[in-house]
Amino acid sequence: MKVGIIGATGYAGQQLVCLLANHPKVSIEFLVSNSYVDEAYSDIYRNFRSRLDLKCISIDEVPSYKKSIDILFIALPHGKSMSIVPEFIEEGIKVIDFGADYRLKSKTEYREWYGLDHASPNLLNEAVYGLPELHKSDIQHASLIANPGCYPTASILALAPLLDAKLVDKNSIIIDAKSGVSGAGRSLNTATLYGEANESLKAYSVATHRHTPEIAQELSKVYEDAVSVLFTPHLIPMNRGILATCYSTLNTLKSQEELLSLYSAFYKDHPFVRISNDLPETKWVKNTNYCDISLRVDPRTNRVIVVSAIDNFNERSS
Amino acid sequence: MKVGIIGATGYAGQQLVCLLANHPKVSIEFLVSNSYVDEAYSDIYRNFRSRLDLKCISIDEVPSYKKSIDILFIALPHGKSMSIVPEFIEEGIKVIDFGADYRLKSKTEYREWYGLDHASPNLLNEAVYGLPELHKSDIQHASLIANPGCYPTASILALAPLLDAKLVDKNSIIIDAKSGVSGAGRSLNTATLYGEANESLKAYSVATHRHTPEIAQELSKVYEDAVSVLFTPHLIPMNRGILATCYSTLNTLKSQEELLSLYSAFYKDHPFVRISNDLPETKWVKNTNYCDISLRVDPRTNRVIVVSAIDNFNERSS
Amino acid sequence: MKVGIIGATGYAGQQLVCLLANHPKVSIEFLVSNSYVDEAYSDIYRNFRSRLDLKCISIDEVPSYKKSIDILFIALPHGKSMSIVPEFIEEGIKVIDFGADYRLKSKTEYREWYGLDHASPNLLNEAVYGLPELHKSDIQHASLIANPGCYPTASILALAPLLDAKLVDKNSIIIDAKSGVSGAGRSLNTATLYGEANESLKAYSVATHRHTPEIAQELSKVYEDAVSVLFTPHLIPMNRGILATCYSTLNTLKSQEELLSLYSAFYKDHPFVRISNDLPETKWVKNTNYCDISLRVDPRTNRVIVVSAIDNFNERSS
Amino acid sequence: MKVGIIGATGYAGQQLVCLLANHPKVSIEFLVSNSYVDEAYSDIYRNFRSRLDLKCISIDEVPSYKKSIDILFIALPHGKSMSIVPEFIEEGIKVIDFGADYRLKSKTEYREWYGLDHASPNLLNEAVYGLPELHKSDIQHASLIANPGCYPTASILALAPLLDAKLVDKNSIIIDAKSGVSGAGRSLNTATLYGEANESLKAYSVATHRHTPEIAQELSKVYEDAVSVLFTPHLIPMNRGILATCYSTLNTLKSQEELLSLYSAFYKDHPFVRISNDLPETKWVKNTNYCDISLRVDPRTNRVIVVSAIDNFNERSS
Repeated sequence: MKVGIIGATGYAGQQLVCLLANHPKVSIEFLVSNSYVDEAYSDIYRNFRSRLDLKCISIDEVPSYKKSIDILFIALPHGKSMSIVPEFIEEGIKVIDFGADYRLKSKTEYREWYGLDHASPNLLNEAVYGLPELHKSDIQHASLIANPGCYPTASILALAPLLDAKLVDKNSIIIDAKSGVSGAGRSLNTATLYGEANESLKAYSVATHRHTPEIAQELSKVYEDAVSVLFTPHLIPMNRGILATCYSTLNTLKSQEELLSLYSAFYKDHPFVRISNDLPETKWVKNTNYCDISLRVDPRTNRVIVVSAIDNFNERSS
Repeated sequence: MKVGIIGATGYAGQQLVCLLANHPKVSIEFLVSNSYVDEAYSDIYRNFRSRLDLKCISIDEVPSYKKSIDILFIALPHGKSMSIVPEFIEEGIKVIDFGADYRLKSKTEYREWYGLDHASPNLLNEAVYGLPELHKSDIQHASLIANPGCYPTASILALAPLLDAKLVDKNSIIIDAKSGVSGAGRSLNTATLYGEANESLKAYSVATHRHTPEIAQELSKVYEDAVSVLFTPHLIPMNRGILATCYSTLNTLKSQEELLSLYSAFYKDHPFVRISNDLPETKWVKNTNYCDISLRVDPRTNRVIVVSAIDNFNERSS
Repeated sequence: MKVGIIGATGYAGQQLVCLLANHPKVSIEFLVSNSYVDEAYSDIYRNFRSRLDLKCISIDEVPSYKKSIDILFIALPHGKSMSIVPEFIEEGIKVIDFGADYRLKSKTEYREWYGLDHASPNLLNEAVYGLPELHKSDIQHASLIANPGCYPTASILALAPLLDAKLVDKNSIIIDAKSGVSGAGRSLNTATLYGEANESLKAYSVATHRHTPEIAQELSKVYEDAVSVLFTPHLIPMNRGILATCYSTLNTLKSQEELLSLYSAFYKDHPFVRISNDLPETKWVKNTNYCDISLRVDPRTNRVIVVSAIDNFNERSS
Repeated sequence: MKVGIIGATGYAGQQLVCLLANHPKVSIEFLVSNSYVDEAYSDIYRNFRSRLDLKCISIDEVPSYKKSIDILFIALPHGKSMSIVPEFIEEGIKVIDFGADYRLKSKTEYREWYGLDHASPNLLNEAVYGLPELHKSDIQHASLIANPGCYPTASILALAPLLDAKLVDKNSIIIDAKSGVSGAGRSLNTATLYGEANESLKAYSVATHRHTPEIAQELSKVYEDAVSVLFTPHLIPMNRGILATCYSTLNTLKSQEELLSLYSAFYKDHPFVRISNDLPETKWVKNTNYCDISLRVDPRTNRVIVVSAIDNFNERSS
């Protein structure tokens, strides 16, 4: 399988390159970078020395490589891939987009949350939301896959079984999520300097984070009715990992055991979700694509608390 | 003012000793330690070298020092101080307890959450909950002060103005709190080894943490009716600091500005609470006794999110 | 290849299990633990959930498994394996010891540095020091392999080319090494609690660390005469990685380019040593068995400074 | 005492403002910032909220404030203060410079190491090197004080007693120093992003760091002859603190006890140097201006290893 990667030198791109470079059936044809054109990938990320010495190319050089690839990966900030993708799709190249441009089905919602008019809205319905636990067969046949955001991966997997079984109040969902600092990317920013982010902790984008509609969209599909979500992200002084603590109100009280059984059944064909009685910790999923999930019931307040952990830098999220 | 400290070599004790040792009007008469009897305090915490070379004594030696002090500080795990305190109170010595034994007013609740019968229940009503923003004048005249837990300090200060103004549904409160690792104390425990706690993140004691009834008790007093609270603590890889993200449902929609004004008015005589439009970060309160608070309103879900930050190792909490 | 592991639940053991569990040609027959007998390995290290659910056995149960294995791995503190190893060697089982018992060739030196009489001194000469860059063919035929310590791996690889070429004063060598905290192991110890080790830095075992004679032994072999070494380890607040900064005085001034060429030639058949003009950083070798090396010449003092980086938790060191 | 600060918003500046703002005898008249003109200091460093709400001014506004101050503090990168200082000195204002411009006595050395011609070389001899342990009385009468660099403070204090007593070979000195990341300043730089600096370790500026001549100059004064120094700095994943591990060869073997006595005697009138048998750790000096020093003798190699620890962000260094 021959692949190209646009946006190869951000943190998400690097992780992707790492996985693809080790994959026995994949050959990397080109790496596109905005900041490091003509530099060897192994000079930017020196862990690749002796392993991947390909030079980065500019996005202007991509057309000449177009014929040579089967799959194009894109890891760019939102608003960038929606102008690039259509020409590849037309050429019959499968596109896997790690950015946000094709995750939402509604161009109105896209404009509302991202502040931009969508440049290729006709592809929104064609795009498949790349969460295998919910859309496995669609993913297999898709020409355009919109990979879930990091927070949505953890949040949707944590809540889908409860909504599928219609056990909770659809307006009661609160997701309090925590992410390592690398999730903020590799751009220069005073707030992500070591001296600023180390030994400190904060919430950000409270009630306004762009992963909110994406989570609501997918959970609404599962529930078959509009679900509302309040989502709060936090920045944690560690490199990688996401923990999502999800709250919702039970329609009728269930025991922890009943709910864990429900979860195990829901994910029985999905080996990368691990349900356990033990509360998850991000260290146990580091460098893997597992999502660990556990839960507790609070009979005093009639709520269920579901906690999930992923490594936000592993393959299925960005 | 002459003081003695029981439990001087835990992290809370150390912070207290640090504050008292620098205080111009305080003389430390004795330091009691369980693990380090006869060792110089400055050999245990070497930052005290050249500053405080007092040797630790055993708790058995305290009686002979009793006459010499005006105030006794106790920083022990729950269940320990309730047998020690009465004799000091009888002698007219003011006691400030950093542990949990005198925080709850109800011995039934104490038994329910701590699994122990209270050894001096008659003192529960005499004890004053040591949060100056709520009980300033009582604290000034109290003979027994039960200092708030670290999580309750951040949580109660974050929510009191909303409950005082009866603006929120009393059954809608969810507190998602995050604490640095030192909050777990200095006891040997595999989970708090550097190699285990660094670069990882977890929730613990979900729906069962002992700070829950303490928060509910104080918020109920403010609300003048029983308030229910769901409280979830998390362990964060940093030394010190607590951030509490508090969710509740507004009875009627208010703007962020209106609510910030309400908060500023509520705390106008309390200089150690700083209300701001900017979301708090724990680094800005480090080594201080400030509690920084901000909030956001989510009109989509009709909720208010209040975020507060404290340094859990500063003087007023443990 | 069927293998057993004694000492499977320490940090070094865990890393070994991780590598073996992923190895397509290896089957793990048993895991011995002192602290976790009868517990599933995946309950101790939860990253192994769904991957390795074997229960740990006691060392007393090992004899009944002896016939079933080809290779025994031992990851125990010094002084433990020297009584266990002989019986396996006699049975024709290949032993790879991650501990210190068979690294030194001299039982006198062993007693001097470890304070113990060696229990199987006759095996000391049979044992091969498991550093492939120096002893590749011996390792292939050895029945007992003594894996190098973590600091010696970084230090010996950094200095061997200079000594092989006899370019430096054999009494001028100073190694200033820095290690992440996990190198100190998983035993309970106040000094390795998060609250103690985080945000701090120290030297330890100055002039007395047990890796000193091991480094001197191997460098002396390369130099073909006794080399003296001063070795100073430091504890760094990070999980894994070692950086060794090595100083020695040049007999005649050489340029950085000349010395880098010498290094490249020395390691040309050893793909896991990467020589570069760029100074190494531990992050670039994380989760790999690369040793990155660079150097600088100081013409003012006639010294060469060689810096090497390894991941102390990867396969070839402990 | 009325003071002004130029370069108030870097990390060194912030620490200085913190100390001055708490000082009962100091009034801060102005804060100059390049990046934050007209912004309130408490909006840049929010720990100052409710404590210091002064707005930053531009350097162009300084002349109008000149008459109002007794002391000017400057915390700027090298090359900046040498053009600013003369006019203040002429006006009789005492200047304390945290930067490097007046530390070296020789303009030739300044050009050699900093690559610039000195703009006010006539002030180099007038300037006093601001290390109280060596130049206390000169500091008291100086009009221009050049505060030592962070590494030199730790290194010079560690080695001065040995050189003063002429106990070591003047060409044998190697200083291997380690610094927290904040020492690298608050400028935007990929290398100091959290995701790059966390969980990693590196040496930098090997054999070329600009603190080398400053250390050599001061040690040579103490020794009364030219001393050569090899200095290697390292970047450590923690916020603050410096540890210097200093090696030198003894002329005649001395015991650890003899040398510790020598050190205690040398520093007997200097309360901020603490000599101890215990090896220093940076955590014990955090937020203080102590320099903790201990040492070990290695009779095998005839060397003495001196280890010192400071908080590089406390008042006397930058």
